[in-house]
Amino acid sequence: MNRMIGAALIGQSGGPTAVINATLVGVIRSALGTEAKKKITHLYGMRNGIEGFLDGRYVDLSAMFTGKDGCADEEKLALLRQTPGAALGSCRRKLPDPMEDEAFFDHLIELFREKNIRYFFYIGGNDSMDTVAKLSRYLASHPAYEMQVIGLPKTIDNDLRGTDHAPGYGSAAKMIATEMKEIVRDCAVYTVPAVTVVEIMGRDAGWLAAASALPRITGSGAPDLVYLPEVPFSMQSFFTDLRALFRKKPNIVVAVSEGIRTPDGRYAGDSDQSGVVDVFGHRYLAGTAKTLEHAVRREFGCKVRSVELNLPQRCAAHVISLTDREEAEAVGSAGLEAALRGVSGCMISIVRSSEEYGYSVSYETVGIQVIAGGERRVPREFINERGNNVTDACLEYLLPLIQGEASLCMRKGIPEHFVIE
Amino acid sequence: MNRMIGAALIGQSGGPTAVINATLVGVIRSALGTEAKKKITHLYGMRNGIEGFLDGRYVDLSAMFTGKDGCADEEKLALLRQTPGAALGSCRRKLPDPMEDEAFFDHLIELFREKNIRYFFYIGGNDSMDTVAKLSRYLASHPAYEMQVIGLPKTIDNDLRGTDHAPGYGSAAKMIATEMKEIVRDCAVYTVPAVTVVEIMGRDAGWLAAASALPRITGSGAPDLVYLPEVPFSMQSFFTDLRALFRKKPNIVVAVSEGIRTPDGRYAGDSDQSGVVDVFGHRYLAGTAKTLEHAVRREFGCKVRSVELNLPQRCAAHVISLTDREEAEAVGSAGLEAALRGVSGCMISIVRSSEEYGYSVSYETVGIQVIAGGERRVPREFINERGNNVTDACLEYLLPLIQGEASLCMRKGIPEHFVIE
Repeated sequence: MNRMIGAALIGQSGGPTAVINATLVGVIRSALGTEAKKKITHLYGMRNGIEGFLDGRYVDLSAMFTGKDGCADEEKLALLRQTPGAALGSCRRKLPDPMEDEAFFDHLIELFREKNIRYFFYIGGNDSMDTVAKLSRYLASHPAYEMQVIGLPKTIDNDLRGTDHAPGYGSAAKMIATEMKEIVRDCAVYTVPAVTVVEIMGRDAGWLAAASALPRITGSGAPDLVYLPEVPFSMQSFFTDLRALFRKKPNIVVAVSEGIRTPDGRYAGDSDQSGVVDVFGHRYLAGTAKTLEHAVRREFGCKVRSVELNLPQRCAAHVISLTDREEAEAVGSAGLEAALRGVSGCMISIVRSSEEYGYSVSYETVGIQVIAGGERRVPREFINERGNNVTDACLEYLLPLIQGEASLCMRKGIPEHFVIE
Repeated sequence: MNRMIGAALIGQSGGPTAVINATLVGVIRSALGTEAKKKITHLYGMRNGIEGFLDGRYVDLSAMFTGKDGCADEEKLALLRQTPGAALGSCRRKLPDPMEDEAFFDHLIELFREKNIRYFFYIGGNDSMDTVAKLSRYLASHPAYEMQVIGLPKTIDNDLRGTDHAPGYGSAAKMIATEMKEIVRDCAVYTVPAVTVVEIMGRDAGWLAAASALPRITGSGAPDLVYLPEVPFSMQSFFTDLRALFRKKPNIVVAVSEGIRTPDGRYAGDSDQSGVVDVFGHRYLAGTAKTLEHAVRREFGCKVRSVELNLPQRCAAHVISLTDREEAEAVGSAGLEAALRGVSGCMISIVRSSEEYGYSVSYETVGIQVIAGGERRVPREFINERGNNVTDACLEYLLPLIQGEASLCMRKGIPEHFVIE
């Protein structure tokens, strides 16, 4: 049992998600509980992650979210919970190796000591867990300063190891499945042969593009073809797939991960594929869908358009998965409770129970050194043999993650957000 | 009073919207009412508008939407109401001038006569109203065949004349306002200077881009700059605007209509601006936001990205405005009732009451010949003097149109749609 009394510090790092602030809410609510306050004197929030903290920028979250009655201000927390983006700001700062730059960490610990910070929480993906891992390694070899360090998982890419899935993914998956189904309906209205290529985020892992196939479970609205980075992409096979489909229907919708690669390992969206250059002769990064659009137009001469789902994939808080948001918040609470129990150097992991009666999860801790550095990709058995769609087993894994809708607090017809200035 | 007894025919035409099927629902529900059925023996739906009908493709909507009890099947109608895209399919067929090609219309009337079609409804925008106008003109000079012809307005662009606003616009506006607010939050997380250019639909009218400024009313989440096609766009003024903003903040979000034009009248997204050519030396239509992205990168050397909101603007049925959907349905009912009263050669118009106690509308009929051919643009007084944002008066006009949210019927976590095979 950890008997340390002191302040807690939390930061957000890497690309934001639609529910990253729900995890922050989980930590704040738990930290403001009666029992927690016996150990946690104060909760501070780093502005722009560790980078802002190094510049002395932080906010007093205890003060900001304590109501007049001394309890957590549930109204403010409800707004923060439905706000996309990282409310504390984010950064992409990579920390040095503690074996190579001890002075950096000595300085950081000095800053912690000044505010008596004894609990450290970092919400993020693979790079952020690298920060947690390095700080943990330094502390393990410098036991003079006691501090519990906990990583809280977050990534729309779902490529974090050590957890069944990461908070943020389910909401992105639900948004992608929903918009894909709507796009398929929109594309079905004309009778002229047409191909619509929808580009979905994911440089190395195809989890997000896989989610576009979810409407198949509802009987309509799924894309005809789904290409993931896990299987090499061949333009000729793609053309063959299109030809086969054109024999059956005029409107074809294709979902592609931005990171699909040709067999020689180059991105399909690489300018070498499109041959497009700008006025200065520079390689022109047209994007994956645009490259495919041009290729299909040249090959088939038909109507083609490309759609990038783009930023809304990671910030469309108006169409989040309630399951995802609840798990994101639970991960925050579990992290705080683990730290109070004396756990450190760990990430909170979502463990899916293999239960007969539906989907359920538990929150466990997993050693941070195990997680950092590796990426979790879509397993080959989740992709069909031809590599142009996902299997039913994949959809069964994904389906529970997109369940449930949140009722949003609106203001004048637009979702309300909580902004930390 | 119209005493004609016969069948009714309805079609959808032009680009679909998120609520175009709500108008179809309005017509179907009203046509299946006890009184209406005394005059309307049957309601048919053209597949792919007038084009499909000319090929003999239509469906029996009376049969499809009559429940076991003989009344309208409300469950099916509820699903159809929340389905984006044109459920009957659409077309972009321009009819000939009835003065120049009488034979075309003689043939069309022959097809109507075969099914005893006495009521004709066409849901669409400017081009579709052109079809309604031509058919009306022909019938006026050929009184031997009696048929009531009614246009039902629909367009996300809000550029239809003769109506305060068009069904479809409010939902697109709400989607754009919502996603813009989310994008602004997402873009605020980093501290490095960055420009995000968001491209919004609208070749000639800037109504949709104007809607991106709506979050201003809620205090946060509006773009810093908004450029509409109604005011000539100057790259140098744009750079000046950016420079002024960079003095105050690192993250700048810009909304642009796809149709912004340089003072010489060319589209800013024209390839001549970007100088980009493909392997064959063809002009490369990079898109408006992409063109601005490249220009800003060259001028400022900062992080720049472009986002096209793209197809979801017209099909994101999961984030519709309830006001818009209810009006879309009411327009359908009003159209049917007008036809039964003997009105013909008209479009249903939404008239905003200038009431002291808030927003209310009525549905009136307006002569179709008045509407066809012209486009309604954003008036200059809705745009600020510098031409880089909209005025508060503009937002006050827009705000009532995006109010209210619909509760969606979901299946397995994804909105359910009604598909007419």
